[in-house]
Amino acid sequence: MQEAATWLKQTLDYEFEDSDLLQRALTHRSASGRNNERLEFLGDSVLQLVVSELVFDERRGASEGRLSRLRSTLVKDQTLSEISAELGLGKYLVLGSGEKKSGGYRRLSILADALEALFGAVYLDRGFDAARRVIYNAFGERVRDLPEEGELRDPKSLLQEYLQGRHLPLPVYSMEKVSGKAHKQFFEVSCTTTKPELKTAGSGSTRRDAEQQAAVAMLAVVEKELG
Amino acid sequence: MQEAATWLKQTLDYEFEDSDLLQRALTHRSASGRNNERLEFLGDSVLQLVVSELVFDERRGASEGRLSRLRSTLVKDQTLSEISAELGLGKYLVLGSGEKKSGGYRRLSILADALEALFGAVYLDRGFDAARRVIYNAFGERVRDLPEEGELRDPKSLLQEYLQGRHLPLPVYSMEKVSGKAHKQFFEVSCTTTKPELKTAGSGSTRRDAEQQAAVAMLAVVEKELG
Repeated sequence: MQEAATWLKQTLDYEFEDSDLLQRALTHRSASGRNNERLEFLGDSVLQLVVSELVFDERRGASEGRLSRLRSTLVKDQTLSEISAELGLGKYLVLGSGEKKSGGYRRLSILADALEALFGAVYLDRGFDAARRVIYNAFGERVRDLPEEGELRDPKSLLQEYLQGRHLPLPVYSMEKVSGKAHKQFFEVSCTTTKPELKTAGSGSTRRDAEQQAAVAMLAVVEKELG
Repeated sequence: MQEAATWLKQTLDYEFEDSDLLQRALTHRSASGRNNERLEFLGDSVLQLVVSELVFDERRGASEGRLSRLRSTLVKDQTLSEISAELGLGKYLVLGSGEKKSGGYRRLSILADALEALFGAVYLDRGFDAARRVIYNAFGERVRDLPEEGELRDPKSLLQEYLQGRHLPLPVYSMEKVSGKAHKQFFEVSCTTTKPELKTAGSGSTRRDAEQQAAVAMLAVVEKELG
């Protein structure tokens, strides 16, 4: 753990009072019962609040919906695993022998989870202000250069990104039913993925709305399925 | 606002340094452009972290999944609107003329939102520790007497509660398809609500899993639909 402590000081300028917390944050459940899952739960909320406050302060005129979309972009797994990779966190992960060999999206999700766990550990170690400072250090340019509205993604794009990030096949949208008269039509569509095998439905007064709704539902179930 | 300030001091033992924040937290969007929507966005994250920390501390042996379920129970709209009602917050809400007459679930959701906005306002006013103290005061017995695992709800029950809380018809689950051989069957079900008119799908190796998944998807789309 001394190496990990040195790495953390160099990359994020943080030293733990309780070094056991650092050990715990870096330990995946495949390695030990004393792992980072509970710290990840806590760290996720710490990160949400820090990023909520950031976008609240930085986008004074933005609606609640726009703030939510901006926050989602910053706290999504893909962003977190990118940051972990940039920091070189993977080298200090404590993994079970099975996970050591696994690559691809499993690995990315382990990196994202460990980063959240690290934020949770700092929060327990020295409180909220320390955790905010570490999160700002980790996000670096990302907090100084927030994406503009036009760069934010709608649910269909988010789903596509999510699946692509895991090298999984893209979803297929199918029109299942159209009802109602010409100017008041009601569309029902399905969204299907083959890996994992899932299907969700959406409906609305435009095909686009129905598809976006099916994508929202698919994001919810696929994230639950893949963890 | 002087009356609201006195009420807040008496019920939650809090005095704002910046009384404009209190005004803002109590103002619904039907009354003014300077309303509580952005504060609600922030307050939601403040509440999540305070409750995450609470369940993390109080349930030392609990898995991440159990902590999540416990947190959901404490931060859901129904709990928040109950607390608002107990505190008598409704009397100090600033509403537009249309909303003043509306009752039922709209009113409950406005109460829940204003309470979250109040937490966000306290956070801005005096920081995280002050917000935690106010949240603990607001939750009262609920933080000292956390529900046990057996009292927590699965997604189907949560969906049912959500719809009942808004006096909406209950969802209907239908088996859409069964495939696979006897010992490796795959079930596809749909979950349909009539008000609002929505349909989601779920699948799994047991009917129960498929229905729970459809309920997760429905919760996501119905919450988005009803706001």
